[in-house]
Amino acid sequence: VEAIESDPVFSRENQYFQTQNERYEAAVRKAVHLQKKMHETGWTENGPEYKYIYRALSGDVAFLLHRVFMRSISVLGSEKQIAKWIPLATQHKLIGSYAQTELGHGTYLQGLETTAVFDTATQEFILNTPKISAMKWWPGDMGRSATHTVVFAQLYVHGKCYGIHPFIVQIRSLQDHSLCPGITAGDIGPKMNFEHIDNGYLLLKNVRIPRENMLSRFCEVQPDGTYVRQGSQKINYFTMTTVRISLISDEVLTPLMKACTIAIRYSVVRRQSKLKPGEQEAKILDYQTQQEKLLPQLAAAYAFHFINDYLQELFNRGYREIQRKNFDMLPELHALSSGFKAVITQHCTAGVEICLRACGGHGYSLLSGLPSLYTKILASCIYEGENTILLLQTARFLIKCFMAASAGQPVPPSVTYLAAVKHRKCPAKDKLDFLSPAIYSEAYQHVAVRLTSSTAAKLQDLIQSGVKKHDAWNQCTVQLVQAAKAHCHYIAVKNFAETVEKLETKAGIQKMMKHLCDLFALHGIFSNTGAFLHDGYTSAAQMNMVTASYLDLLAVIRKDAVPLVDAFDFTDKSLNSALGSYDGQVYQRLYEWAQKSPTNQMSPAYERYLKPLLHNTLSKL
Amino acid sequence: VEAIESDPVFSRENQYFQTQNERYEAAVRKAVHLQKKMHETGWTENGPEYKYIYRALSGDVAFLLHRVFMRSISVLGSEKQIAKWIPLATQHKLIGSYAQTELGHGTYLQGLETTAVFDTATQEFILNTPKISAMKWWPGDMGRSATHTVVFAQLYVHGKCYGIHPFIVQIRSLQDHSLCPGITAGDIGPKMNFEHIDNGYLLLKNVRIPRENMLSRFCEVQPDGTYVRQGSQKINYFTMTTVRISLISDEVLTPLMKACTIAIRYSVVRRQSKLKPGEQEAKILDYQTQQEKLLPQLAAAYAFHFINDYLQELFNRGYREIQRKNFDMLPELHALSSGFKAVITQHCTAGVEICLRACGGHGYSLLSGLPSLYTKILASCIYEGENTILLLQTARFLIKCFMAASAGQPVPPSVTYLAAVKHRKCPAKDKLDFLSPAIYSEAYQHVAVRLTSSTAAKLQDLIQSGVKKHDAWNQCTVQLVQAAKAHCHYIAVKNFAETVEKLETKAGIQKMMKHLCDLFALHGIFSNTGAFLHDGYTSAAQMNMVTASYLDLLAVIRKDAVPLVDAFDFTDKSLNSALGSYDGQVYQRLYEWAQKSPTNQMSPAYERYLKPLLHNTLSKL
Repeated sequence: VEAIESDPVFSRENQYFQTQNERYEAAVRKAVHLQKKMHETGWTENGPEYKYIYRALSGDVAFLLHRVFMRSISVLGSEKQIAKWIPLATQHKLIGSYAQTELGHGTYLQGLETTAVFDTATQEFILNTPKISAMKWWPGDMGRSATHTVVFAQLYVHGKCYGIHPFIVQIRSLQDHSLCPGITAGDIGPKMNFEHIDNGYLLLKNVRIPRENMLSRFCEVQPDGTYVRQGSQKINYFTMTTVRISLISDEVLTPLMKACTIAIRYSVVRRQSKLKPGEQEAKILDYQTQQEKLLPQLAAAYAFHFINDYLQELFNRGYREIQRKNFDMLPELHALSSGFKAVITQHCTAGVEICLRACGGHGYSLLSGLPSLYTKILASCIYEGENTILLLQTARFLIKCFMAASAGQPVPPSVTYLAAVKHRKCPAKDKLDFLSPAIYSEAYQHVAVRLTSSTAAKLQDLIQSGVKKHDAWNQCTVQLVQAAKAHCHYIAVKNFAETVEKLETKAGIQKMMKHLCDLFALHGIFSNTGAFLHDGYTSAAQMNMVTASYLDLLAVIRKDAVPLVDAFDFTDKSLNSALGSYDGQVYQRLYEWAQKSPTNQMSPAYERYLKPLLHNTLSKL
Repeated sequence: VEAIESDPVFSRENQYFQTQNERYEAAVRKAVHLQKKMHETGWTENGPEYKYIYRALSGDVAFLLHRVFMRSISVLGSEKQIAKWIPLATQHKLIGSYAQTELGHGTYLQGLETTAVFDTATQEFILNTPKISAMKWWPGDMGRSATHTVVFAQLYVHGKCYGIHPFIVQIRSLQDHSLCPGITAGDIGPKMNFEHIDNGYLLLKNVRIPRENMLSRFCEVQPDGTYVRQGSQKINYFTMTTVRISLISDEVLTPLMKACTIAIRYSVVRRQSKLKPGEQEAKILDYQTQQEKLLPQLAAAYAFHFINDYLQELFNRGYREIQRKNFDMLPELHALSSGFKAVITQHCTAGVEICLRACGGHGYSLLSGLPSLYTKILASCIYEGENTILLLQTARFLIKCFMAASAGQPVPPSVTYLAAVKHRKCPAKDKLDFLSPAIYSEAYQHVAVRLTSSTAAKLQDLIQSGVKKHDAWNQCTVQLVQAAKAHCHYIAVKNFAETVEKLETKAGIQKMMKHLCDLFALHGIFSNTGAFLHDGYTSAAQMNMVTASYLDLLAVIRKDAVPLVDAFDFTDKSLNSALGSYDGQVYQRLYEWAQKSPTNQMSPAYERYLKPLLHNTLSKL
């Protein structure tokens, strides 16, 4: 981190003042410089340093898709293809991209419209964009940088469609970077963030590539046009799982942690109004409403940090099994990674927005760092699988497992609870009982079971009443999404509590983490009381206890908030925020940074418009 | 609207591709051009056209603070001051701004630190910024344009502080626009939106202004330093009320209406996945989850449109009373305008974000228009009173009225319901009963009463147990905010239902509006079931009826969604969105617009970095 931050080429000092063009160029410069630096220091992209490099750069670097290009060849390519392309990519003799999404097609891959027709005569595939909705749209690094890309297209051989397959296509000359024949490509223009990335479009017109360019670890077209499928394609799911799990830490948790750090530190510097008459104005973190905005976000950051560990461990176990050709863990892994990708991105995005608003006007200034964190994290709700669709994948798994469990069949470990006894009552007797992980975990479990079982029942009722299966499913989707969220929320609470228990050798940390765990759990109940009250599992009197315990906790945690934030250990530089330290110099820094803005130079608007207006000479213009 | 849209100077075509400097210059150009145009056509700023002009320009014009400058002089200035300054401002012989907020002080006006000390010897006020947190920060048009501003400062006479007063201060030369002696001013730099506005900072160092420059309708410092207060200051509250009500329509409802239009039109063009096997991919608006995202936003847009009418009428009545020197309506008007400002800005901001996300990747492109709508409306949660603080103002009024009503004293009309009988049960027997406005309005009323009375009880208990009054208040604020929201939500539902009833002569419109009214009410219950279940007012069985009716309504309204959106009557130009029409040309338009982006020109990055990287000549650089 120090090596990155002390290097002026990696400075993020001017980022808020740059145009999209300047941001792009800076990201390319940084990527090239990083290559040199890694070469000098011996760091590698698979080494332990990369995670820290990425965090210190805040992802503000080009050629991230080059890595995806390489990974897709490694996973989907034959040994021969790997031997040819990976060295070229490693030595940067080409710049790769990954062209999957189209203007008219995202998450539903089967709907992609780009075609690749095999021509037996020339032993080539002919790639085409048959209509405008089939144009590739969004691929990173493709708008201006990439020379090659992996294009996903419908494969046709002898007039028969074999579905979506990946093809390596060169799009720009390696000599002068001009577009190759038949290629139209460019930048898709401004987005809410990612100004530094040249997300691109790509139109293919009769682009011919050799037969060898179809990535063929799992499927191959032989010279005579025979289509051969080999090995299991289940591994494809595993690739998506990998990406969904890996993005949680870098792209989702880090921004929420940074936002919490900025907002909480600012809230102990900023003073507003008087809490007690006659005294100095109060630190805004001393207001219950401010605590209620920020502290649950802090608790959630830790909760999801621990879930990330949980998913990572599950993933590693799954990976070992897959290497032994055992694919049994895949459905559970897919359901958990999909559900948590959706729940965590949604929760953390909302959390960053809360942090931003909680800093008032200063949060709205780009110089606070919060707007950029927000506009960037928001994209995580959309990419790598749209959240609603992902939650419905999790729900499908839940319904299936619920039916199996009800029939006494075995189900994966994370869902065995679905067979638990129903219709109990929460045993809590006073507000302190709600600081017991057993009490609140069970409440979450109860809600997840109730939502899953009631939706399964509705689904069956509809089908039995003659509604077609797909219509019945559509009519249940709002409730299915609720069930999937409840499932993930339960696991997050349970996992947080179990993690805290394991901290028994570190009493000081354990105590603080226990408070945050309680807060995470009680905030979820307080914000969603209906789910717990619905069938009387929790009574109104018990809900009042939850509220009391929850509000008490805010005051307890408030005094430890700053140390808890410091435990994240983000330096000011990686925050790049004028509000992000608590040295009391917030205002000084805002003023200094504002003076650097190019809007602080004289604009031609004065001579052109203001002067004629003020001097009443407009008519003479 | 046509006159604005057909004029190339007002074109918003390039806005997504411009820098902050270019946006500022364009806004100044438009403002100057608008002056000419208004002069030619005879339109006036107080005329009926202005509302349409503003909407057609999407507020993307400079000198909006010039109007606030003029209004503050009209309201706070003496007749003599008005006679001097208003003609100068009207003829643009100066450009005005309004300097209230400071780096360290926002909503809490009493905390402002700028000082104005009266010097009897020279008959001047000496203005100073005593420390960095006292620097004026945020005033619009002040960073680069304004020549004058109204500065709010603590008035000192003979060493005694008389609190905050307004002073007219010249900050730039009328000859060459250079900063006046003692003035440091500039632009505060980039924000999440409002790139076209030069929000500014201002430091004052021994700036002397004549005694006559203190706005003196209500307070005056006489030549010998005698401080004289005249007339009622209550009118000051009324000014804030005016601003809060007027911003609802222009700055909050219009963006939500535009966002709904864009997202709903797009959702009948965009197709994704198959709803029925073997059929064409389905329009995404046919998915229940998509309906559940968008249709409640549409219903809310209408609900708040009608509340805006309600507030406007109440305001007009209040204004007539005030002119008769009757200030009785002020507390109710202040409570309603504060509460609704907070509730509507919050709800509409969340609604725009939902619309953005519901358009997936394309919603994230600036070319969809949605990111700009979001980043702009978000500011409305912060400016003109931070939302949490405003809700607590409403809550304070509610608690006061609840106590009065409980003691049998008269209370204002909007809160007489607080004295209603408690502990009844919802009388609904089947799901159709929940389409009855009487049933759901009463449920909302019940919740508002329960939350207000239980929080009032908690407050009293705390105080009786010895907790100091201000501490007790702080410990109740999270729940007080809930009570204030419930109050506003109840009034919004009731007002929507009453408005629908009055449409009896327009059966077709009434039917559609009735559906939206039902949806608005049921969505609120469905999203907040705990509030209704808590004390058993609504049973679990009844809540299942609510859910069933709510989900049924989505399917019913879905088929009328596009006509309902068209009824808003926004032209594509004022949307400025590549997704905003439903002619099926969405993809074509995205492609055409993207090609106009400056990022689609060759960047020097190729020669500087990509070529050396690809040709392995980096080391030679």
